[in-house]
Amino acid sequence: MAHQQPRYVAVIGASDATEWELAMAEDVGRLLAQAGVVLVCGGLGGVMNAAAAGAAAEGGTSVGILPGDDRTGASPHLTVAVTTGFGEGRNVLVARSADAVIAVGGEFGTLSEVALALKMGKPVVGLGTWDLRRDDMEADPLVRVETAADAVRAALGV
Amino acid sequence: MAHQQPRYVAVIGASDATEWELAMAEDVGRLLAQAGVVLVCGGLGGVMNAAAAGAAAEGGTSVGILPGDDRTGASPHLTVAVTTGFGEGRNVLVARSADAVIAVGGEFGTLSEVALALKMGKPVVGLGTWDLRRDDMEADPLVRVETAADAVRAALGV
Amino acid sequence: MAHQQPRYVAVIGASDATEWELAMAEDVGRLLAQAGVVLVCGGLGGVMNAAAAGAAAEGGTSVGILPGDDRTGASPHLTVAVTTGFGEGRNVLVARSADAVIAVGGEFGTLSEVALALKMGKPVVGLGTWDLRRDDMEADPLVRVETAADAVRAALGV
Amino acid sequence: MAHQQPRYVAVIGASDATEWELAMAEDVGRLLAQAGVVLVCGGLGGVMNAAAAGAAAEGGTSVGILPGDDRTGASPHLTVAVTTGFGEGRNVLVARSADAVIAVGGEFGTLSEVALALKMGKPVVGLGTWDLRRDDMEADPLVRVETAADAVRAALGV
Repeated sequence: MAHQQPRYVAVIGASDATEWELAMAEDVGRLLAQAGVVLVCGGLGGVMNAAAAGAAAEGGTSVGILPGDDRTGASPHLTVAVTTGFGEGRNVLVARSADAVIAVGGEFGTLSEVALALKMGKPVVGLGTWDLRRDDMEADPLVRVETAADAVRAALGV
Repeated sequence: MAHQQPRYVAVIGASDATEWELAMAEDVGRLLAQAGVVLVCGGLGGVMNAAAAGAAAEGGTSVGILPGDDRTGASPHLTVAVTTGFGEGRNVLVARSADAVIAVGGEFGTLSEVALALKMGKPVVGLGTWDLRRDDMEADPLVRVETAADAVRAALGV
Repeated sequence: MAHQQPRYVAVIGASDATEWELAMAEDVGRLLAQAGVVLVCGGLGGVMNAAAAGAAAEGGTSVGILPGDDRTGASPHLTVAVTTGFGEGRNVLVARSADAVIAVGGEFGTLSEVALALKMGKPVVGLGTWDLRRDDMEADPLVRVETAADAVRAALGV
Repeated sequence: MAHQQPRYVAVIGASDATEWELAMAEDVGRLLAQAGVVLVCGGLGGVMNAAAAGAAAEGGTSVGILPGDDRTGASPHLTVAVTTGFGEGRNVLVARSADAVIAVGGEFGTLSEVALALKMGKPVVGLGTWDLRRDDMEADPLVRVETAADAVRAALGV
């Protein structure tokens, strides 16, 4: 049997997050690790660190894609940290590296990752995140869920 | 008297745009050129080309930042085209190069540029573009206007 | 008759340059402008500024691709400055935006642009720049010249 | 005792490599894994794959930074693959993510990574790679070694 390559799912959200967002992100990280998924995130604190901590607690693999010129501020729970020096430009790489994205809350940086992932045609799942409307658009471009388990199921298409 | 450096304003919007959006983008391009502003755009068709055409009609200067590996598909009205080979990653450079952003309509790519510009702390003016809501956010992060003249005034802070 | 699109040639070299390098860069900038070529450069001082000054003196068009988050330090002679926030990563865009590259002296940053342009299959012309050798490579990958006029001729393939 | 963060070392070289280069890269990958170092590479075949295979054989951690829009062509031995869609632009991220670089043979892409790492002030160790000369430069900017063990020692500064 051929070795099956793992899927990659990004968990995106703010450094400055609520307790509910942090708990959700950690649960999502745990569930992704249990499913054998590689976690992608922005590599810093808040939602990013909580997701990486969740993945690490289950022995999962995670990669953080950092904005700065070095690994300062990187979550200690990451398997690997990639240093870009691209500032907010690293958001492109978070979206690009993932097969699907789960947004947990989030500010403008998260919104940019949501938009980039949608532009790239990737499924975006929302847990208490941005509401996006355009007059000529009927359907919500995000899959809205209320629990970590539903977020992971939606991201994996199961 | 010291030579004053020009301001840079990005006009962002979709390749596939409505007549109203194209007319707005061209008017915005004309008004920016008249104000001595360098126009930044994504360099392709639709809103991007219309804005560049407007700037060119007034003898203005424009730069298009292209997603591809060469200048294929670049608007013929640009003063300069920069080739990135970064795909959607070029949206970061459109937002970064501008001092303010005017969004005319737009799809997911435009939304990503709006979000990146907001994250970078730059004023974003909206002409019939995305509506962004978050439960904990009271004020609209965009300055909403109805005319090209108001868009340019808002972008230039006058 | 169809409007012919201009060619783009990058002039690359260090901020900290010798008098000879600055004179060469300015002459190259002048000659490129006379040939209707758009000058691409890294947008800062030294060789970059000298080339932009040469182009401006002949009424030519130039674009500087800056490493920082804003236009601080940009040559005042540029037609347009693009701000990347990518640090040395902007070297990729200098190479990518050009149809051919002329290296004038240069340090490690210049060497990276030479290598990136060669990797992209673009002609690289050298004026007193790096010597690159590999045991299994017989031909010099650069076209070596001694004068600005020869550099421009080689870059334009005439 | 505080948890010590691992060091990151990039192994760079061509997809199309000689037997000697592949053997060197695999040995370097093994030795880096034994030293608890995270291996960074360009994620594709040849030297990149050999280094990742060496790291994997010793239970080490590796990250490949891919040029394309998806993980097609990624080495199966990587712990994590990051997808950039930046083409040769990903070379910047390989250099940026590493604390030191070991070049094994290599073509123009490798040369660009060598130059970028030198520009960023990072140690570059050479195993049968490019010879770089400039008239005004006396010392070789690379540390030249003949064995995988010496390459790893030089990269780790031990």
